[in-house]
Amino acid sequence: MKIQYDGTRYKGWQRQKGSTDTIQGRVEAVLSRTMGYPVEFVGAGRTDAGVHAYEQVANVHLNESYETGWLQSKMNEYLPEDIRIMEVKEAGERFHSRLNAIGKVYEYRLLKRDCQDVFHRRYAWHMDKELDVEKMKLAAEQLIGQHDFKGFCTKASKKKSTVRRMDAIEIREEEKDIFIRFTGNGFLYNMVRILTGTLVEIGTGEREADSIPEILLSGDRQQAGQTAPAQGLMLRKVLYD
Amino acid sequence: MKIQYDGTRYKGWQRQKGSTDTIQGRVEAVLSRTMGYPVEFVGAGRTDAGVHAYEQVANVHLNESYETGWLQSKMNEYLPEDIRIMEVKEAGERFHSRLNAIGKVYEYRLLKRDCQDVFHRRYAWHMDKELDVEKMKLAAEQLIGQHDFKGFCTKASKKKSTVRRMDAIEIREEEKDIFIRFTGNGFLYNMVRILTGTLVEIGTGEREADSIPEILLSGDRQQAGQTAPAQGLMLRKVLYD
Repeated sequence: MKIQYDGTRYKGWQRQKGSTDTIQGRVEAVLSRTMGYPVEFVGAGRTDAGVHAYEQVANVHLNESYETGWLQSKMNEYLPEDIRIMEVKEAGERFHSRLNAIGKVYEYRLLKRDCQDVFHRRYAWHMDKELDVEKMKLAAEQLIGQHDFKGFCTKASKKKSTVRRMDAIEIREEEKDIFIRFTGNGFLYNMVRILTGTLVEIGTGEREADSIPEILLSGDRQQAGQTAPAQGLMLRKVLYD
Repeated sequence: MKIQYDGTRYKGWQRQKGSTDTIQGRVEAVLSRTMGYPVEFVGAGRTDAGVHAYEQVANVHLNESYETGWLQSKMNEYLPEDIRIMEVKEAGERFHSRLNAIGKVYEYRLLKRDCQDVFHRRYAWHMDKELDVEKMKLAAEQLIGQHDFKGFCTKASKKKSTVRRMDAIEIREEEKDIFIRFTGNGFLYNMVRILTGTLVEIGTGEREADSIPEILLSGDRQQAGQTAPAQGLMLRKVLYD
């Protein structure tokens, strides 16, 4: 299923015991009620509290076969209006939304200085300083390729690898906005937000563009920039073969 | 002052006794607290409950002269984040935001069929039928000029004129949206929403494009289309000489 949500009032994707305020928890409640048996809703990415998804992918295993159009409209009928099922497709028995994903695209939205906008307040980080976008682009280039991104991650696991491949970082300016789009094979906890926070500090001049290789080498979270606020982040797309 | 607001959680512009849930009421409370004396905030247009403003204009009379930048940041500090003062300028003693306005621009946003979008749900009317935009453009042409718009108005006053001049109606399609932009010298109560509802019924084929002159002639609200929902409407601009 392709699913879209406004993360503003949720505690992120992942189901939490005793709370119905997560995306996964809400959808599972609706699915289980509709089906009459417990259904697990397995998402490709676990977005943080306040983070949005333009196109998240999740899979379910059901005991029977249902007409996909019926299933979609039934779910949308019972889901709150800030969570929408955009598409339902039958998949192979072995399909797993997360394990089969070959990459993800995240986009961070910055609202330029002097462009206050009431309508973007839930979906962008409002800058109060001028940003040098060319410097940010130079810095972003140094993140491309396979690296240990441990320094750009909070709560790095000691057991699991923190090596990821970054395929592209595109920074584009529009009328009022600056969009930073990250494409990679996987993202660590808070990684996009810390990368964005670091790029922004480079854009304001608080930090040099060539500090990136040092942070990568050190693997030290303290050397990277601040964690950008959740509301500017959107999971744009999950990539499959 | 130029002011922007998300009308979603307000009962419209106009101050109501015993309620702080209006835009005017909220701003006046902040102004009066900041100044230490009652201040009236006179808006150019009284938007309905749920209607937004990209750029509303309002004027105040203050007992003293204040630095405009100070006033703006003071107000934004105390206002909720869905109401923002975008600009403060000193005006002549006789300036009146409503009486001096020579026109207004309103925009209605429709979200196309098959383009559900969680992020536009508070700012657009989601269509569940296909719209013939060419037919809507033909119908819109018949509204241009000076007419008695009584048929496109709820609660028409018997004493006040319902004649208004419509200067332009532009209908443009973007990726997911259809925008209908109305420019005129003044708008009656619910007029833009009833015009939109009528144009949409023409777009779906429920109503003929040439029914417009009949509605204008009859002055009968019953002959016009439904009132489009508030959340799709935005006051874009107030025009002055």
